[in-house]
Amino acid sequence: MIQDSTSKTKMTFERENIRRMTGYTPGEQPDVADVVKLNTNENPYPPAGAVIEALRGIDAEALRRYPPATARPFREIAARVHGLSPENVIATNGGDELLRMTITTFVDPHQPVGVAEPSYSLYPVLAAIHDCPVVRVPLNADWSIPSDFAKRMNDEGAKLVILVNPHAPSGRLTSIDQLACIAADLDGVLLIDEAYVDFVDPEVNHDAVQLVKQYENVLLLRTLSKGYSLAGLRFGYGMGSVSLIHPMLTKTKDSYNVDVVAQRLAEAALKSRGEAAKTWTAVRTERKRLTERLNALGFSCPESQSNFVLARMSESAEAGARRLYESLKELNIFVRYFDQDRLRDKLRITIGRPEENDALLHALEELL
Amino acid sequence: MIQDSTSKTKMTFERENIRRMTGYTPGEQPDVADVVKLNTNENPYPPAGAVIEALRGIDAEALRRYPPATARPFREIAARVHGLSPENVIATNGGDELLRMTITTFVDPHQPVGVAEPSYSLYPVLAAIHDCPVVRVPLNADWSIPSDFAKRMNDEGAKLVILVNPHAPSGRLTSIDQLACIAADLDGVLLIDEAYVDFVDPEVNHDAVQLVKQYENVLLLRTLSKGYSLAGLRFGYGMGSVSLIHPMLTKTKDSYNVDVVAQRLAEAALKSRGEAAKTWTAVRTERKRLTERLNALGFSCPESQSNFVLARMSESAEAGARRLYESLKELNIFVRYFDQDRLRDKLRITIGRPEENDALLHALEELL
Repeated sequence: MIQDSTSKTKMTFERENIRRMTGYTPGEQPDVADVVKLNTNENPYPPAGAVIEALRGIDAEALRRYPPATARPFREIAARVHGLSPENVIATNGGDELLRMTITTFVDPHQPVGVAEPSYSLYPVLAAIHDCPVVRVPLNADWSIPSDFAKRMNDEGAKLVILVNPHAPSGRLTSIDQLACIAADLDGVLLIDEAYVDFVDPEVNHDAVQLVKQYENVLLLRTLSKGYSLAGLRFGYGMGSVSLIHPMLTKTKDSYNVDVVAQRLAEAALKSRGEAAKTWTAVRTERKRLTERLNALGFSCPESQSNFVLARMSESAEAGARRLYESLKELNIFVRYFDQDRLRDKLRITIGRPEENDALLHALEELL
Repeated sequence: MIQDSTSKTKMTFERENIRRMTGYTPGEQPDVADVVKLNTNENPYPPAGAVIEALRGIDAEALRRYPPATARPFREIAARVHGLSPENVIATNGGDELLRMTITTFVDPHQPVGVAEPSYSLYPVLAAIHDCPVVRVPLNADWSIPSDFAKRMNDEGAKLVILVNPHAPSGRLTSIDQLACIAADLDGVLLIDEAYVDFVDPEVNHDAVQLVKQYENVLLLRTLSKGYSLAGLRFGYGMGSVSLIHPMLTKTKDSYNVDVVAQRLAEAALKSRGEAAKTWTAVRTERKRLTERLNALGFSCPESQSNFVLARMSESAEAGARRLYESLKELNIFVRYFDQDRLRDKLRITIGRPEENDALLHALEELL
């Protein structure tokens, strides 16, 4: 299109804070079939058969009509699964929508949003869109959360604090006990992003839903993107007290925020979660093997409870990790490199299928 | 869930503006099969065969991976259809997302958003979420836009003005010439919500895309919900200058805002739009017949270029329309009644299939 506007040329309509900010950069999605894709934490196994059946069962009439506005059928299933009431659950267009909506519902512009540093780089982007400053509290050297975390957030006036647990990009799991302390101490809302929680070892008995029952300021984020192999579907959900869920459900969410296909497939996914759980077991098995092999190759990987590992290069030279990332990419093996403090000597590697992990290990043996 | 929070009980975390506001109320979606549903402007005919084929073609691998983040394949098709470049197009999770995003991208909190009154009741709700006052300029008695519309919006400092065209709930079409005058005069962004534009009589030669080429401040909203019989899918798109589209595409939209199923079906829908166009012709034929029959029954309906008509009761007693709406509902015939100024003596009736319209007309004959 030729921009020969007669009356208004090269105008800037953006708000000042939008003009100043930089958008989020999603991980590469190479458009080639023959790649080993270990860079965006997708589940390496397909979604459950029941999900595909639900997809095949969608008819023209379902598409023609508006979907259930609040995804009530899904919320009833999720409530049963987690021992809550549907009023404690909201369905969202991916976990991203819940993150955005939490900010717009609970944080006024110019009020601080708190994050642990480093963390998911989308959080500060969403804060910037809403014109909110970001309070960054650095994690300890072992990626644990400092014991004065809540106090520091309160001192800075954070209205909302976002923690991803298991942590990204390290994979470290913070215990329910520590999260409970933080929730109890925080003045604001605590959003726990559990995008990767399905991959936690069941022996740990980690269940943050108990925090929702105990603390009115705790909001849990779940997504079907990873655990349920449905990144293409954009389906997430939030769980929290009625005082957190109700305003989002009745006021701030888009009126029909989740389409009928996503709702039906999400219902099927939760109902057949035993099948998804088999993929979680397989990922854990490979996580153990890959970690051991990487360590044997001279990397150092902290224990991960997620579907990725953060591998630190033996020589701490920062250039080494980036060079390795680029060399792997030339071999059509994609991992994630973060050009930011504390991460420049590391690669974040998604756990793939055994043969994908083997391809990576083989390439690393050659390259190192 | 029992709200026995140990530490924080019955707290309000909502922002003050969210606490004060009232959410949008979607039209009723009765959960009964055997109803005549003429209340939420769905297309009465099913989506095109190619759309259903596209649905059947989606496989597990597409669901497992993240979708194209900016819906580039769809945007290329839409650009070809409308004679624009993909950089002039953004795909959104329903038209609603574009409305919301336009506000958050171009309007600072406390800056005014302008609307014509009456209009789609979601606009003021979205402004309230963003803590923006609403400037309401009343339409003329015949639902036309006052000639000093842009001047009044500028005087009030409106940063964004939203017009739905054809107008809802009257169905009146504002001409390209008048829209061009408004666009040229307005200081802010002009969002033209074309949710119903597919139903405009082709003889009118109405094509607002030329405004996008001429005016950098014009943003068009399209949706597949009505014209393409895909309300269940939640797919809309915006068209505008790069200065309007770019910040939304790269900064303010959710990172993967449209799922892979919606993208694939939307691509198929636009490619096979000849089939959808047949439903538009059928709706226009029924619109003419229904209008004539309603007028013969003593209603008064302004000429509609949409897929609904606004029928005014002959007796202007306000209670009459509401009673009629309720009586119809008892007969499982759903139409829309708006309890607001200038609309309390009217019913908004979606154009249904011939037999649905007959059922309505028959019921009205009995009730009146």
